[in-house]
Amino acid sequence: MPAFSYSRILSLSHVIHPAIPRWPGDPAIEFEVVAAIDREGYYVRRLTIGEHSATHMNAPNSFFVDGVGIDAYAPASLVVPAIVVDIREQAAKHPDYRLRERDISRWEQQQGQIPAGCVVLLYTGWQTKWSEPVAFLNLDDQGIPHFPGFSAEVTQFLLAERAIAGVGIDTHGVDGGSDTTFATNRQILAQQGIVLECLTNLEQLPAIGAQLMIAPLPLQNGSGSPASVLAFVP
Amino acid sequence: MPAFSYSRILSLSHVIHPAIPRWPGDPAIEFEVVAAIDREGYYVRRLTIGEHSATHMNAPNSFFVDGVGIDAYAPASLVVPAIVVDIREQAAKHPDYRLRERDISRWEQQQGQIPAGCVVLLYTGWQTKWSEPVAFLNLDDQGIPHFPGFSAEVTQFLLAERAIAGVGIDTHGVDGGSDTTFATNRQILAQQGIVLECLTNLEQLPAIGAQLMIAPLPLQNGSGSPASVLAFVP
Repeated sequence: MPAFSYSRILSLSHVIHPAIPRWPGDPAIEFEVVAAIDREGYYVRRLTIGEHSATHMNAPNSFFVDGVGIDAYAPASLVVPAIVVDIREQAAKHPDYRLRERDISRWEQQQGQIPAGCVVLLYTGWQTKWSEPVAFLNLDDQGIPHFPGFSAEVTQFLLAERAIAGVGIDTHGVDGGSDTTFATNRQILAQQGIVLECLTNLEQLPAIGAQLMIAPLPLQNGSGSPASVLAFVP
Repeated sequence: MPAFSYSRILSLSHVIHPAIPRWPGDPAIEFEVVAAIDREGYYVRRLTIGEHSATHMNAPNSFFVDGVGIDAYAPASLVVPAIVVDIREQAAKHPDYRLRERDISRWEQQQGQIPAGCVVLLYTGWQTKWSEPVAFLNLDDQGIPHFPGFSAEVTQFLLAERAIAGVGIDTHGVDGGSDTTFATNRQILAQQGIVLECLTNLEQLPAIGAQLMIAPLPLQNGSGSPASVLAFVP
C-alpha cells in the first residue's frame, strides 16, 4: 500500500490575476462580477483564462491531433515524487540555456540515480521574474521568447534511461523559449507524461524527497489546464 | 509527522464541459479555440466558467463583504480527512430533505463520534442526476431549486460540538436548493472552513477513513473556484 509522510505542504502554483505573464497569443485573463452579496445574496465572478495560462499542465492533444485531453489522466498518475535540478547559475548567464547531460551527471553524483517514475523539476530562477511579465517572457525584436529549458537530448535520455514520469519548470515552457519544435513537450506527451509550466516556490523543495499532487481542472478534451500543484515535503 | 497510506486514489470532481448543470444566473461554460496545431504548432482553448460552477469550493468573500478569497486557504488546510453520511433514502423521498440530528446520531452509533478536523460529505444520490441538468437543479415554477442539503441546526452542532473542518455535497449547494439564507455556507465560511459542492463518486468512499486533497485554482480574491478534489482511500 503506497504511503507517504510529510512535515510541510506547500503550493507550487502562482496566484492567478489579470496581470500575470501571458504567452504571445494567449487570451487575456478576465474576471467579471456576475452576482453580488447585496443583490443575489452571494458574490460570484466569471473567469476567463487560457488552458495554458498561469501554473498549468499540458495535455497530449495540445501537440498531437489524436492525443488525449487533460481529463484522460488517471488521478493516481498525478501523485508522483519529484526531484529538483538547480540550473540557476547557468540560466543567469545564458537566458537560452538548455539542460545538459553534465547537469544530470552532477545531480546524480550528489543524489544518486534519478528514480524511475519521478517528475524532474528544472529550477531556473525564472520564478522570481513572475511579477515582471516583460522579463519573464523576455521577447526579442521578432517576438521570440528567451528563457531556459530542457533540451531534446536530455529529455530523450531521461525518458529512455531513467523512465521519468514527466517534467516541470518555473519558466513559461519546458522547451526553452526559442524552441519552436516543442521537442520536450512532444516527447513527454507522446507517452502521456506530465508537463508542468510556470511553477513557483521551487527553492523550498529538497533535491529529492518531495511528493507532488498535481490538480488540473478536468476539462473535457482540454489541451491542458491551469493547475494547483501541491508539494508534500518530508 | 503526518502520514497516510492508501490503496486507491479517485477523483470526486465531475468532468467540465458546456452542458453541465448551472445555477440560475451563472455564466455559460465556453471553450474557444485560440491556437491550433497546424497554425501555431500547438492547440489551446480559452475557458470561460463561473467561480461556483462544476465541482467547486466556495470562499468566505462569497458571503461576507470582508471575507477572504479562495487564494487565502493555506495548502495544509486543504488536506483533510472526510466522513460520508448517506441520506440517499431520505432524499429520494423528499427532494427538500435537510440533514437531521438523528441522521448524525445513526452515523455515530455505527462509526463512532465524528472526528474533529474532518469534512462531512453528504451523499444524497444527486450525483447520478448530473447528466440531466433539469433534474439536478429541479427548479419549480418560481425558479427555486429543490434538492437536499444540510440544515442550519445540524451545521451549528457539527461546528460547535464536533469541530469539523467543513462540509461537502453531491448537489449544487450545501444549503439545500430552497434555502435563500445560505445558512450552512455562512456558518462554515464565517470560520474560513471548507465548502465543496457538486461532488461525485461518493459511492466509492468509505463512511470513514478517506483523506481528501482539495485543489481549487488560486484565483486572487476569488469567490471560490472549480476544484479538483482527490480522495485517498485506504
